[in-house]
Amino acid sequence: MTHPEPDTREACVQALAQAHAADPQRAREHLLEVMRTIQAREPELGAFVCLADVQALAAQAARAAGPLAGIAVGVKDVFDTLDLPTRYGSPALYPALPARQDAPVVAALRRAGALVVGKTTTTEFAYLHPTATRNPAAAGRTPGGSSAGSAAAVAAGLVPLALGSQTGGSTIRPASYCGVVGYMPTALWLPKHGLKCFSWSLDTVGLFARRVADAAWCAQALSGRSLAEDADAGRAIAVGVVGHHPWGEPAPAARRAVEAAAAALRGCGIRTQPVDLPPIAGAAFDAHADVQGYEAVTALRHEWTTARAQLSPTLGEYLDGAASITADAYERAQHVAAAARRELDAWLGDCDLLLTPSAPDEAPAGYDSTGPSTFNRLWTLLGWPCVSVPGLRGDHGAPIGVQLVGRAGTDARVLGVARRLEQALALSPGQVAAGSTKG
Amino acid sequence: MTHPEPDTREACVQALAQAHAADPQRAREHLLEVMRTIQAREPELGAFVCLADVQALAAQAARAAGPLAGIAVGVKDVFDTLDLPTRYGSPALYPALPARQDAPVVAALRRAGALVVGKTTTTEFAYLHPTATRNPAAAGRTPGGSSAGSAAAVAAGLVPLALGSQTGGSTIRPASYCGVVGYMPTALWLPKHGLKCFSWSLDTVGLFARRVADAAWCAQALSGRSLAEDADAGRAIAVGVVGHHPWGEPAPAARRAVEAAAAALRGCGIRTQPVDLPPIAGAAFDAHADVQGYEAVTALRHEWTTARAQLSPTLGEYLDGAASITADAYERAQHVAAAARRELDAWLGDCDLLLTPSAPDEAPAGYDSTGPSTFNRLWTLLGWPCVSVPGLRGDHGAPIGVQLVGRAGTDARVLGVARRLEQALALSPGQVAAGSTKG
Repeated sequence: MTHPEPDTREACVQALAQAHAADPQRAREHLLEVMRTIQAREPELGAFVCLADVQALAAQAARAAGPLAGIAVGVKDVFDTLDLPTRYGSPALYPALPARQDAPVVAALRRAGALVVGKTTTTEFAYLHPTATRNPAAAGRTPGGSSAGSAAAVAAGLVPLALGSQTGGSTIRPASYCGVVGYMPTALWLPKHGLKCFSWSLDTVGLFARRVADAAWCAQALSGRSLAEDADAGRAIAVGVVGHHPWGEPAPAARRAVEAAAAALRGCGIRTQPVDLPPIAGAAFDAHADVQGYEAVTALRHEWTTARAQLSPTLGEYLDGAASITADAYERAQHVAAAARRELDAWLGDCDLLLTPSAPDEAPAGYDSTGPSTFNRLWTLLGWPCVSVPGLRGDHGAPIGVQLVGRAGTDARVLGVARRLEQALALSPGQVAAGSTKG
Repeated sequence: MTHPEPDTREACVQALAQAHAADPQRAREHLLEVMRTIQAREPELGAFVCLADVQALAAQAARAAGPLAGIAVGVKDVFDTLDLPTRYGSPALYPALPARQDAPVVAALRRAGALVVGKTTTTEFAYLHPTATRNPAAAGRTPGGSSAGSAAAVAAGLVPLALGSQTGGSTIRPASYCGVVGYMPTALWLPKHGLKCFSWSLDTVGLFARRVADAAWCAQALSGRSLAEDADAGRAIAVGVVGHHPWGEPAPAARRAVEAAAAALRGCGIRTQPVDLPPIAGAAFDAHADVQGYEAVTALRHEWTTARAQLSPTLGEYLDGAASITADAYERAQHVAAAARRELDAWLGDCDLLLTPSAPDEAPAGYDSTGPSTFNRLWTLLGWPCVSVPGLRGDHGAPIGVQLVGRAGTDARVLGVARRLEQALALSPGQVAAGSTKG
């Protein structure tokens, strides 16, 4: 390996930002090294659609202050940015022009001292049409979608943090496939305006990081909520391990990954118990389709009405089909979603969290698909926080994540347990899920 | 009166659109007459910030089809438009450039055949800093805000329909002050993406019209929901007339307007009964302030962080103050809002609707303020549909509206009863609220 390795792999974001704030010269040098690494790796990776001007970034780095001082961040190109072209993954419809304002979450990143080093690839309007991004953790396999570039950039060690989004499984799934941490906060804890709308009920801002602590630190800086401390240290925690999945069962490797994670949690003194989702979970999973479809047709009405031919066939045909979802069907789906939020909250009972696969398997081979979002849609619809924890591998040696899910608003707990799980998996490399590691 | 009167005062939108779709030449001539009228009246009114190109509109008119074929619509300048400058009431921060896409609700207007004749004035980011718009129905008095231009343009008969928004009382209040119909649909029934975000929980698309039937027809065309028919014809309806208001009592003229409206409803065979709001209504009213403030600081972070000096003192100081609202206080406010939605729905019991003042009084004299939104905030927070019905006048002869409010999702009923009330008030001009008409 001849490429320089940036130190984003080693230092945690909190310590790095503190060092930058204390030493502007160090912040500047760090930034220049990050940009050199990106330049070197980008041709093979294809994680970015554009990069910020190095000299402008270096100047920002030298005066950076705040909890993310001088931290290089990649921003998925579905978020509006004032200084960088914003194309929503649709260069046919959106020329390489910046937006008129920073999305609020991007403004919050900058206010916390972060440096937006570039826009990362997204599938077209964050739907399914694949990007050209490669998975740095699994040669020949999709990095997932729609936040492909953000997952890949973090996985390759180019940036320690990246912004993504999730409407079905666009944060947790690529995090799982690329072997990084993915965190989808409680719905609306991070503002989503200035994120190109696909579904206003489902679109959620997501974060990618190499460590759970980094994701928590970033989310704390952006949201003003206490997320960085494990508030539950010392408290008895119970995790429900989901058995049957109404949307179909995962591959054996994903199931073994969950078993390995459950064992690791028990090793930390956390109680695990098998649970089966109640019937409303399946109904809510189905409702996700109607909510997303109805809202996508509405949200993309301008593009669909005026430029149908410039959409990918994948998206165009999806919208054509979704246009038949009636307002009544949409209302029914929203009622199911509301009922599911209430019923699942009660059903969870004494359990603090759920443990499930992040995706049905390791990343599929090839680049024709970004993989299925089946294991993510329910939680996105509920608006419950999810963290995908890496550290395990599938039958072909590609990364496979496990997902911790909590009730709405319990992000600090989900992140805290995810941190313990991450540590336990790092200390127990024998607990990989692979039956036979070929990759 | 030497100004030409467009026929938007006479024909209802549905019939006008049908005539346009059948006769392109008539649609074209109508459009040209509308634009001549706007040109003639605009200097005194100040309702528009920009107008569309007449020849381009005429060409659109000549091929218009759909439920709003050839209907001239004004669009509040907080909505993104592709062909017209979009400044959000902040020319200091946003130059006269079009947005990169039509807001979905604007795209839906165009798809229904409507012609966007211009952008109407809005207070800065739809907050409180007044516009230069004049109230065509009450000389020397504010048209209200924030949707000042849309209310005034409809009141002056320039357009039969206009798009507005409401975060506190920005649709119902100016409708009341200008003597037109204001309709705020159930939250999210009309898509609000591409509307400059002030508060993502509260911002709601609103409509202005000269007749309830026109507002219902337009909302039906935009939303695909059945709203144009009075589904309750023949069914017994009960309207609760709100007595005590936890946010303060209205002026005597507004109370008399409500009494006159209640009498008119009884004249239609609708049962009315006095009701007093439960304590949660007051708590929810207070919660509105924390929800709006916390979200406004987040949504306007870019503007507030990078261009504080270019905000009006009104808005700048509001954001400075709101920045101290913690995430915890915000969460508590959101919990109160959720509880209020449940409790008020149950409390309403056998009542189908509520009748309350649209505003505490007729429009205040002068142009320093856009008037208080106290009588609107609770319903906006709940996301319940409201219609302001005109036809009554205050002590100084200025218009005064009464507001019908229904449970979420009961828009067809609210609009149906509003239509009956509108008719009853038109037939009973003796039932004006004024004690002494001086204006």
